[in-house]
Amino acid sequence: MNLSASEISIFLLILSLILFVARAIGEVFRIFKQPNVVGEILAGIILGPTILGALFPSVFNFLFVASPKIQIALNGLTTIAVVLLLLISGLEVDLSIVLKQGKAAILTSFMGIVFPFAIGFTVSYFFPNFLGIVNSNMKLPFSLFIGTALSITALPVVARTLMDLNIFKTEIGFLIIASAMLNDLIGWIIFSVILGMIGTSSGNFSFELTIVLIFVFIAFMLLIGRKLVDGILPFIQTKISFPGGVLNFILIIGFLAASFTEYIGIHAIFGAFIAGIAIGDSAHLKESTRDIIQQFVTNIFAPLFFVSIGLRVNFIQNFDIWIVLIFLVLAFAGKVIGCGLGAYWGGLKKNDALAIGFGMNSRGAMEIVLGALALQYGLIQEKVFVGLVIMAIVTSISSAPFMNYFLRERKLNSFVNILKLKYILFTNALSRKDVISELTSFVAKSSNLDEEFLFNEIWKREEEMPTGIANYLAIPHARVEIKYPIIAVAVSEAGIDFEAADSLPAKIIILLLTPKENNELQLQLLSEIAKSFNNRDSIESLLKSKTKEEFYDNIKNYFNSLNEPSKALPFIEKHITV
Amino acid sequence: MNLSASEISIFLLILSLILFVARAIGEVFRIFKQPNVVGEILAGIILGPTILGALFPSVFNFLFVASPKIQIALNGLTTIAVVLLLLISGLEVDLSIVLKQGKAAILTSFMGIVFPFAIGFTVSYFFPNFLGIVNSNMKLPFSLFIGTALSITALPVVARTLMDLNIFKTEIGFLIIASAMLNDLIGWIIFSVILGMIGTSSGNFSFELTIVLIFVFIAFMLLIGRKLVDGILPFIQTKISFPGGVLNFILIIGFLAASFTEYIGIHAIFGAFIAGIAIGDSAHLKESTRDIIQQFVTNIFAPLFFVSIGLRVNFIQNFDIWIVLIFLVLAFAGKVIGCGLGAYWGGLKKNDALAIGFGMNSRGAMEIVLGALALQYGLIQEKVFVGLVIMAIVTSISSAPFMNYFLRERKLNSFVNILKLKYILFTNALSRKDVISELTSFVAKSSNLDEEFLFNEIWKREEEMPTGIANYLAIPHARVEIKYPIIAVAVSEAGIDFEAADSLPAKIIILLLTPKENNELQLQLLSEIAKSFNNRDSIESLLKSKTKEEFYDNIKNYFNSLNEPSKALPFIEKHITV
Repeated sequence: MNLSASEISIFLLILSLILFVARAIGEVFRIFKQPNVVGEILAGIILGPTILGALFPSVFNFLFVASPKIQIALNGLTTIAVVLLLLISGLEVDLSIVLKQGKAAILTSFMGIVFPFAIGFTVSYFFPNFLGIVNSNMKLPFSLFIGTALSITALPVVARTLMDLNIFKTEIGFLIIASAMLNDLIGWIIFSVILGMIGTSSGNFSFELTIVLIFVFIAFMLLIGRKLVDGILPFIQTKISFPGGVLNFILIIGFLAASFTEYIGIHAIFGAFIAGIAIGDSAHLKESTRDIIQQFVTNIFAPLFFVSIGLRVNFIQNFDIWIVLIFLVLAFAGKVIGCGLGAYWGGLKKNDALAIGFGMNSRGAMEIVLGALALQYGLIQEKVFVGLVIMAIVTSISSAPFMNYFLRERKLNSFVNILKLKYILFTNALSRKDVISELTSFVAKSSNLDEEFLFNEIWKREEEMPTGIANYLAIPHARVEIKYPIIAVAVSEAGIDFEAADSLPAKIIILLLTPKENNELQLQLLSEIAKSFNNRDSIESLLKSKTKEEFYDNIKNYFNSLNEPSKALPFIEKHITV
Repeated sequence: MNLSASEISIFLLILSLILFVARAIGEVFRIFKQPNVVGEILAGIILGPTILGALFPSVFNFLFVASPKIQIALNGLTTIAVVLLLLISGLEVDLSIVLKQGKAAILTSFMGIVFPFAIGFTVSYFFPNFLGIVNSNMKLPFSLFIGTALSITALPVVARTLMDLNIFKTEIGFLIIASAMLNDLIGWIIFSVILGMIGTSSGNFSFELTIVLIFVFIAFMLLIGRKLVDGILPFIQTKISFPGGVLNFILIIGFLAASFTEYIGIHAIFGAFIAGIAIGDSAHLKESTRDIIQQFVTNIFAPLFFVSIGLRVNFIQNFDIWIVLIFLVLAFAGKVIGCGLGAYWGGLKKNDALAIGFGMNSRGAMEIVLGALALQYGLIQEKVFVGLVIMAIVTSISSAPFMNYFLRERKLNSFVNILKLKYILFTNALSRKDVISELTSFVAKSSNLDEEFLFNEIWKREEEMPTGIANYLAIPHARVEIKYPIIAVAVSEAGIDFEAADSLPAKIIILLLTPKENNELQLQLLSEIAKSFNNRDSIESLLKSKTKEEFYDNIKNYFNSLNEPSKALPFIEKHITV
């Protein structure tokens, strides 16, 4: 069975059209820093029954409906697309990051799944008609699905948001990433169990056997498979043509796992996702390989899949304002309260906890993939699907502004934000006392503080315990009657002994003054500065600055660079586009 | 129309299987330095009716035959695969290289098309039954096709062979590449005309109109489209997300052009190929972008297409020894005689001309793509297709050994091959006469030559016209009674005036002695050495060598590096894998 010449012509035209519209709209959304997936969904709505089909039904029919063979070919392609999409999503998940995070991550993650799941399940179980259940015999799987759908978090959107807010490498950033990874994994496991339950699949196995097979598969892939991949990869990368061999290897494993999970009665993409995790965890997987797959999948296959979603459903006809509102309320309430509480119990401040809640709230692409499957399997009707898509888009778009709002205080009170050029001086002082005296007289001149009082406060503290840290850094500090924190920096070429742990003389002496009533802020800033001075090479090159202006620029750049994409999570940080 | 769950499972299993078998066999062939396409075809033969279908008909049937929907989905995918394959083949073609080559390239190229075409056409027109014509009413297009099939040259295989032989950057290398590019372009144009002629296509246009449209399309793409792409690319690469935007751009143009040519009644891949040429010619296209497309297409899509060829045809049942032999004879005779004569008339030596003939003889992937289309359109029968595939494989595999044989003399007589460590000395001589005297006495000691005679021969030549070249190089030389050439090198830290064009003193003095009767060899070596010293920076770093051993290693490495993949043809040189 082959496509005819005219079918091939239309098929290729469709592909060209899909990629073009998705890219064009995606670029418009990019200007507003919105995830590509939003533009791609919209492209599908424009090319699909909602707009093209309504305005030019004959064109729509000619392109997408008239030939069943073209439909099948497109379906085959979008199946591959979504399998590859989940494969690369799996590659992004790094289980070791999850394990490295402590109590706060576990609580955030746990509450971020349990709470939204609970309210989603409860509402849909007791009021299934509100959410337009299709078949009331399927109340249990339906409610389980709604619960799962609400507890999903879109890792790529979250990572992108964190980077835009410049907090990717902070504690909060890692916490959110780790929680989102765990959420994704658990969410997909629950969803695969639901699929087994409704038995929409090939029906090769009983429900019980399917569930057993799911967990055997997960255990095998994440315990044994992961080790095997890690052992085989170096061989493939050195002995087999590169990067062709390893590209093939990843796809062979991915397709095979996908085929297997589809066979046992859950969807192919679950297998691809788990295979992705098993492969991506290997430290041997090279950056360039990830890059090639990532670029090709996010730029070619992802648009094909997300556009195809808009092609299937009429978003205007199936728009039900009540379902949309219910989803939005449940989604925001579930994640913001759930994750927020978890983070708060984990020891974070209220505003930080709320920021985390909104950060975890974005559903992005994952929600849409999940919804599309549920629709395909008859678990939900089109109105619910439209509600899910809109909820996914709204939660993703609103995530960054909300986080920004709740993190404003934290950002204002960062070292870089407080430091002013006028508070930097180059000193020739040779003793602790001299340099502190010079700094306090300097600060007193530009503020309303009394010089003698200020010096006494700081010197008292300094005599008790010298404030030399390490790597040429000392931080004399005090809490005084001021409204906003003040930072002054003395740079000493000769160096002054501040009894630092590494015996190096202090060459950068940072005077830190914080408001008396705010003990937390002092600790926060002390910890931020001390942590940031962990790289002696960078500090030494910072000390080469010749003028105050140069030093000011260099130290700001240095602090900002610490928050930039690093090698810790190279893949997520560099490539997030979905 | 969607694939069912079990169809998706089988579809993904097939993909995994195809990639695995193709890679496994491809790697075995790689050990023997054979092109991947040979392994991929063989993988198809193993998975197809020839082997799997014969041994385990039920498995074969289950996987590839039972579901028409899977067949359509696979057909859609292989259609995209071959379109992408031709798109990247087009990206490799650099028309400016063709134009830069002179008379020899034009003659080689011209003869390399006309001669094989003529004998192919003649034999198949007058003895069509020998070549198993299907429908005697189609004698003209059939004969035109056989002529075209014989005049195809596979650019990637040729480039790979040239690199393996270390002659990619030589005159012969460029000559072959340029000729192969022109061959490909002209071959595809003729083939598209044939397709228009047999009207197998959608039949939207008359033959005359189709031909007009073909040439309008080519002219538009290569004249206007090429300029447009070159103008738009910088915008896309800077303003639109990178590399996503440009990846999309290339595919959008490629699919659109493919859809257009399919629509006007020739195959989609012709449009993709021409679009590839138009895009690839732009100097703005970045290496990393080419790399991502290239890797994904050659490693994922190319195997899918070539394996699918083996899936369609039973290679044992359709093996006809006479057809295979006729094709082999016509193929070798056509290209080797045609290109060989062209190169010979273009001024090359007999052995070099034969080497070029065998270099141009490899048909590789392009022949197989062409044959698969002809089979699909009913232009040839399966026996002829099998004959073409075997001919393509045999010509590709035999290309390198034959070239090696005819170039053995040229390679033996290269600077690097002649230079011996024992003929290197560091000199303190301060005049031309002294250093030449030192070199001749040195050579005389290790050879049977008479020192005084040798000195006189060289000094006579040197006094007539000093042999300083440029960049610290001088080449005193003479033809004497020896059997093999001798090269001795004096390295002078102070430098000796040899009246070079750039007034720099000679610091590397190369004494070149060649057999008296072989005037050509002297010219060849003089030209090789002089040309190779064109990079003053490299020469200066060469002069930093402290010992004879170090100098010997460095100069050998320098000469070898000159023949390595450079930036002249980055794409072809770096990525050839098909």
